[in-house]
Amino acid sequence: MIQTVDFKSIIDRYQVVFFDSFGVIKNYKGLVPGMRNTFDYLEAQGKDYYIVTNDASRSPQQLASSFVKLGLEMITPEKIISSGMLAKEYLNLKVHDGTVAYLGTEDSAHYIESAGLHTLPVKAIDESNIHQINGLVFLDDEGFNWYRDLNKVVNLLRKRNIPAIVANTDYAYPLTNTDVAIAVGALANMIEHIVGKKFIRFGKPDSQMFMFAYDLVREANPALGKKDIVMVGDTLHTDILGGNKFGLDTVLVYTGNTLPEDAAMSITSTGIVPTHICENAVV
Amino acid sequence: MIQTVDFKSIIDRYQVVFFDSFGVIKNYKGLVPGMRNTFDYLEAQGKDYYIVTNDASRSPQQLASSFVKLGLEMITPEKIISSGMLAKEYLNLKVHDGTVAYLGTEDSAHYIESAGLHTLPVKAIDESNIHQINGLVFLDDEGFNWYRDLNKVVNLLRKRNIPAIVANTDYAYPLTNTDVAIAVGALANMIEHIVGKKFIRFGKPDSQMFMFAYDLVREANPALGKKDIVMVGDTLHTDILGGNKFGLDTVLVYTGNTLPEDAAMSITSTGIVPTHICENAVV
Amino acid sequence: MIQTVDFKSIIDRYQVVFFDSFGVIKNYKGLVPGMRNTFDYLEAQGKDYYIVTNDASRSPQQLASSFVKLGLEMITPEKIISSGMLAKEYLNLKVHDGTVAYLGTEDSAHYIESAGLHTLPVKAIDESNIHQINGLVFLDDEGFNWYRDLNKVVNLLRKRNIPAIVANTDYAYPLTNTDVAIAVGALANMIEHIVGKKFIRFGKPDSQMFMFAYDLVREANPALGKKDIVMVGDTLHTDILGGNKFGLDTVLVYTGNTLPEDAAMSITSTGIVPTHICENAVV
Amino acid sequence: MIQTVDFKSIIDRYQVVFFDSFGVIKNYKGLVPGMRNTFDYLEAQGKDYYIVTNDASRSPQQLASSFVKLGLEMITPEKIISSGMLAKEYLNLKVHDGTVAYLGTEDSAHYIESAGLHTLPVKAIDESNIHQINGLVFLDDEGFNWYRDLNKVVNLLRKRNIPAIVANTDYAYPLTNTDVAIAVGALANMIEHIVGKKFIRFGKPDSQMFMFAYDLVREANPALGKKDIVMVGDTLHTDILGGNKFGLDTVLVYTGNTLPEDAAMSITSTGIVPTHICENAVV
Repeated sequence: MIQTVDFKSIIDRYQVVFFDSFGVIKNYKGLVPGMRNTFDYLEAQGKDYYIVTNDASRSPQQLASSFVKLGLEMITPEKIISSGMLAKEYLNLKVHDGTVAYLGTEDSAHYIESAGLHTLPVKAIDESNIHQINGLVFLDDEGFNWYRDLNKVVNLLRKRNIPAIVANTDYAYPLTNTDVAIAVGALANMIEHIVGKKFIRFGKPDSQMFMFAYDLVREANPALGKKDIVMVGDTLHTDILGGNKFGLDTVLVYTGNTLPEDAAMSITSTGIVPTHICENAVV
Repeated sequence: MIQTVDFKSIIDRYQVVFFDSFGVIKNYKGLVPGMRNTFDYLEAQGKDYYIVTNDASRSPQQLASSFVKLGLEMITPEKIISSGMLAKEYLNLKVHDGTVAYLGTEDSAHYIESAGLHTLPVKAIDESNIHQINGLVFLDDEGFNWYRDLNKVVNLLRKRNIPAIVANTDYAYPLTNTDVAIAVGALANMIEHIVGKKFIRFGKPDSQMFMFAYDLVREANPALGKKDIVMVGDTLHTDILGGNKFGLDTVLVYTGNTLPEDAAMSITSTGIVPTHICENAVV
Repeated sequence: MIQTVDFKSIIDRYQVVFFDSFGVIKNYKGLVPGMRNTFDYLEAQGKDYYIVTNDASRSPQQLASSFVKLGLEMITPEKIISSGMLAKEYLNLKVHDGTVAYLGTEDSAHYIESAGLHTLPVKAIDESNIHQINGLVFLDDEGFNWYRDLNKVVNLLRKRNIPAIVANTDYAYPLTNTDVAIAVGALANMIEHIVGKKFIRFGKPDSQMFMFAYDLVREANPALGKKDIVMVGDTLHTDILGGNKFGLDTVLVYTGNTLPEDAAMSITSTGIVPTHICENAVV
Repeated sequence: MIQTVDFKSIIDRYQVVFFDSFGVIKNYKGLVPGMRNTFDYLEAQGKDYYIVTNDASRSPQQLASSFVKLGLEMITPEKIISSGMLAKEYLNLKVHDGTVAYLGTEDSAHYIESAGLHTLPVKAIDESNIHQINGLVFLDDEGFNWYRDLNKVVNLLRKRNIPAIVANTDYAYPLTNTDVAIAVGALANMIEHIVGKKFIRFGKPDSQMFMFAYDLVREANPALGKKDIVMVGDTLHTDILGGNKFGLDTVLVYTGNTLPEDAAMSITSTGIVPTHICENAVV
């Protein structure tokens, strides 16, 4: 078993902390006990922090509300960088007219829509509107009939050469301590293989997530650099790989995807090495 | 455009013909016009033939009935080699007790069941029976709720280290002249990536399909060898690649997946070269 | 640690034994101690056996000589099924004229040449002969300049739409107790990705290897079936996966690629489950 | 054939132009005729430009010298963003002590070394220094013995759990109008598959390349945004996919990897759609 270190001793060395959300701040049981202390401590020390999450199912406002409900009222929408925000920026920059079709809940679509784009659930695509569709977004694994709508998506992408955006690259997410659910990233991957086209993916480990947060850091304090930031996550392939690649120091915690008894083996077999390992992100 | 040759001139050179079913004998419109002549001719010439199909949704008996309905009463069950038969043989040899869970219609399961195995649709898996399950088969894309049952399969394979058999390796199949449907092979692939285990696949281009048919050929006439057989198919990646690899001559026809205007480019870009190309498999 | 069973108690239950060569009969130190007893025992019991090996660098005659040198004079060429034999059969059936280019030693090429095919080392390809080349075989990782000849192969396959045959699918093989060497299967894979074409692979876990041996079994004794055969190997992804898929019972041994301390974890994470596990293949 | 548009009419709409180097400014024949006019025009119009290149074999200074030799003395080192610069930044941030091993020429290593890191060619790795090595970089396909050093790299990565950085993600590059050469990205991919670890890749289409250039744009003129920039490239999978994903408009030119007669088919089959298509990047 790898020796863990005290989380407080780690964050004392950095000016800014990036947190993954699910598996670090909360998990399937709710708030990770003690996390309120962590954010109080950061506020007291005047250290900046951001939540960097592969979640495209809700807007930063909705995500922030969910933190408030857990008693973390300091996590305001401006503190949150989600893969859905990158998808929305892409659509704003690259899809100038027409309609964007989506797979996901109405909530996730409403958030994209608020940017001035017309959205259409995949189930509503028919011969009358298929030629107005100029983009497709995979937002969430819920809110649609998989059989009907995944088949519709395959045929949409065969008929219209439009960009397909994957706003959450995860393959699965934990539901309980024993069960996981298939995430929209896995559905998107399957369809990409069937239609043979290149999809556009947003989400850790991709650098664009970190860049977005890093821009906010430098805006608040231009003197800060990558050496001043530490990324805290529970997943080697997204949080740690992405943080490392972007040039950040990284902390692996055991409150989510990675179990203490598997950590050493996973790190060796993947070659993804966190800078530090802590039991949890609690000070 | 590649110059095609007359199908009759091709089969006159061989003693045995292997046919793919969908895209060669029939397609989404029904029987390919003229195919009755082909089988009459083969019968008249005393040439042997087999149908080699990636279909695990029905038994050879059921598949033969469907040919009879199209007016091809000479295609008896003994003429049919399906990927489902290989899955059934595997289960007979390798799963000695307990229950086999499946994704597919009741029809597809009944066929496996007839071999003396207990089967259970994935939807019926629960805490009371999960420990009796000693194998899982992907039979068909229909007959189950994708959202509920694909998620159940992921969790079954995380909890029980059992063989997962893919009885149809196709990714998609044509529904109409413009639309395709996602096949169970693509669903299986997605789940294989999520759970990180090796699944066992049956179906062209795998050699085991051809070996099964070749055994029947040699049983009927031990003097025949691979040089006496030609494989006729509409798909480069399954029929032609598999036939070539097994050492057979191959014929690509244009009545299914491969369009005349795309053939030259597909052959060049994949490196999968049929021995002959014909408009169709009609004499 | 998984409880192992006595190898003799296993083979007493079967009529025929298939052995992998490297990692089971011999390894980097030479003959696995005691293997002479195993073959004496099989001979005394009148049980049949075959060596099923992913080795295309030498002919069955040359491979048998190497066993004789280790004191196993009962392993005659007829007992050996190598992936090179499948490559040779493919070339005989499918490449009717012209020349076959190869990567490997002269020894490996001489063996293909003995089948009546003209062979040419990749280094000798030039403008004067490139249009006579009707096939390419990856035989061995030795015998050529990697930089010069791998680059030549890429350009050959861009200019000539010919079949590329991979006669050994392994990615790496052990050199000492700490070091491995890159095998020709990995080089072939790299080039397949660069040129974007489908290569034809022979070697375990592919069924064609087992079919070849199974044909010999049934020729010697038509009463035998797959249930009478056990496959013994040291590698989950080739020997055990391939044996399982072909419908054979399988034995994993610890004298090669799989270490006792890793076996349980490897079996769980890959889902490749041997029927039995033994320390070694010694009676 | 797709209708192309005049390059001048395109760049008149943007404030900043990002150029790929090979296939756009120069190709295997030398300078693309007329490119001098393009840079004169940009200078005259006061438009900013950057060269964004997957080249880790030389420093920006060396790359700039090569442009001067072609008569493009306006392309100074500050105008050049190479994947090698990202690799160097990564090493500076993440490898604090010890030695970095490399595959490539001495030139490529000298450039990394100039950042204060100790470098060691892979050929010089032995038992005495292997434990000091804290990182490995794939810099160039030249400057080493492939057989000896690729095998050494595999064993290095099996013995030491260190980051492996791929400073050029290309699989192949053009040598003449008919021939290509295998690039270091393909070698790195092969080794990643053999050792089963995650490597860290820098180079288009990855966003980090574009982010680096975009930071320079905003430093020079904070009023500019992504809408003011156009990326010009010859390769769909790197320049166009990467530019699109970063949110930039893109121009495909026909002076490199993409031939006019293949463009429509490539765009349809990959789903990678440039905003504009021009014969070349000449005004």
